[in-house]
Amino acid sequence: MSSTPPIIGRKTWAIAEGYIPGWSNGPGPEFTSHEAFCVLNPAAQEAHIQLTVFFADRDPAGPYHLTVGARRTKHFRFNNLTDPEPIPLATSYASVFESDVPVVIQHTRLDSRQAANALMTTMAFPGPE
Amino acid sequence: MSSTPPIIGRKTWAIAEGYIPGWSNGPGPEFTSHEAFCVLNPAAQEAHIQLTVFFADRDPAGPYHLTVGARRTKHFRFNNLTDPEPIPLATSYASVFESDVPVVIQHTRLDSRQAANALMTTMAFPGPE
Amino acid sequence: MSSTPPIIGRKTWAIAEGYIPGWSNGPGPEFTSHEAFCVLNPAAQEAHIQLTVFFADRDPAGPYHLTVGARRTKHFRFNNLTDPEPIPLATSYASVFESDVPVVIQHTRLDSRQAANALMTTMAFPGPE
Amino acid sequence: MSSTPPIIGRKTWAIAEGYIPGWSNGPGPEFTSHEAFCVLNPAAQEAHIQLTVFFADRDPAGPYHLTVGARRTKHFRFNNLTDPEPIPLATSYASVFESDVPVVIQHTRLDSRQAANALMTTMAFPGPE
Repeated sequence: MSSTPPIIGRKTWAIAEGYIPGWSNGPGPEFTSHEAFCVLNPAAQEAHIQLTVFFADRDPAGPYHLTVGARRTKHFRFNNLTDPEPIPLATSYASVFESDVPVVIQHTRLDSRQAANALMTTMAFPGPE
Repeated sequence: MSSTPPIIGRKTWAIAEGYIPGWSNGPGPEFTSHEAFCVLNPAAQEAHIQLTVFFADRDPAGPYHLTVGARRTKHFRFNNLTDPEPIPLATSYASVFESDVPVVIQHTRLDSRQAANALMTTMAFPGPE
Repeated sequence: MSSTPPIIGRKTWAIAEGYIPGWSNGPGPEFTSHEAFCVLNPAAQEAHIQLTVFFADRDPAGPYHLTVGARRTKHFRFNNLTDPEPIPLATSYASVFESDVPVVIQHTRLDSRQAANALMTTMAFPGPE
Repeated sequence: MSSTPPIIGRKTWAIAEGYIPGWSNGPGPEFTSHEAFCVLNPAAQEAHIQLTVFFADRDPAGPYHLTVGARRTKHFRFNNLTDPEPIPLATSYASVFESDVPVVIQHTRLDSRQAANALMTTMAFPGPE
């Protein structure tokens, strides 16, 4: 094995669950209720990602344009997206990601609406390549 | 990359875990203990889904007939299914989904039986196509 | 689509995480800290499953012999396994499942050691067929 | 079916989420906030694993060299890695694993920063072989 990690990942990913809890307990930003998508780009080139956000009763939002450097990871909060529009709180949504290089994407929610925070995570669903 | 998200998803999905906690703490519907299956339909056609629910000691229930619009997401609670029959609380079950267009399905439980809610999620298991 | 759900599943599955918390709060059996593996058998034949449990510093335990009826689901607790031997509490383990028909397996832990229970789940890792 | 479990697993795995909570409540080591990667090696040969850890704004750390015995499981905490360098707390990271034999890897976090711990888990993302 070389000391260079292998290229692993896919160019398309989807997350079907999406819901930013409407309020929070505890100090922010750590305990601000949020949903994150964590992107790992193990490749030697910068990754350019287009994110489309789907809703129950309106046309999708986006594309949001995101960049993750070569051999870097970046953990984005859906809460912090603003361009072209913010994601509303306490609303069901879902997301599809397209990258120009293979990446790995994982979904995490921290819910601090009650006194002790709850967490959940899952690997996103990978497209065929 | 175009601004149209790619088609991603599968026509068959399964969730082996299923259990709606028997009671709740906190204001509903947010803190009503529930299990959800979130469906993302990124395709340009409406998705028609048949859900079959399996139990430990009786024949399966269903099919339940569900619809998710083109380029929409819909987060269903197992608690709210009624036709052909409701899912009993505090009972082990599992589920298989068949869709006529590729979709992505994710499983989530919120358990508020104790003072602070617990969450868990996983991508459902995809069939071969 | 017919009203018979399609055959979905694999004959081999693995779970790398395994740890039954050593104590519990709240009424049992619901709030007994536990780890479960939920098996869905959507096929028309009974499934016969062999489970092998791996440890950090001793040879594997098993095989445990399990049966899940045709078109049934069964949620097993690792806590309740006894034959050929029980799984010790507060000990790291992992598991491999072999079934004679395709099934779907999901892993869940409920940890009630502190005042409000925590949950986690993931689909198990499927073998190639 | 023989009593020997089949070989299941992959040689490359990735986890995109990574964050060790910065503080803890409750007795350690059980309730020390931590992230773990659980490795199952069902094969008849010892597994030698190289781990590379990625960050947002610096070059990757590693490789970390890990060994898991034949037909054994080992649950590692990112918190306890020291060679070539420790993983900082409260910092976003991601990880890629390369093994010389097929293994299965699962990701788990225990967050005990508030009064009742939270848990999350997911199977890591497998490479093509």
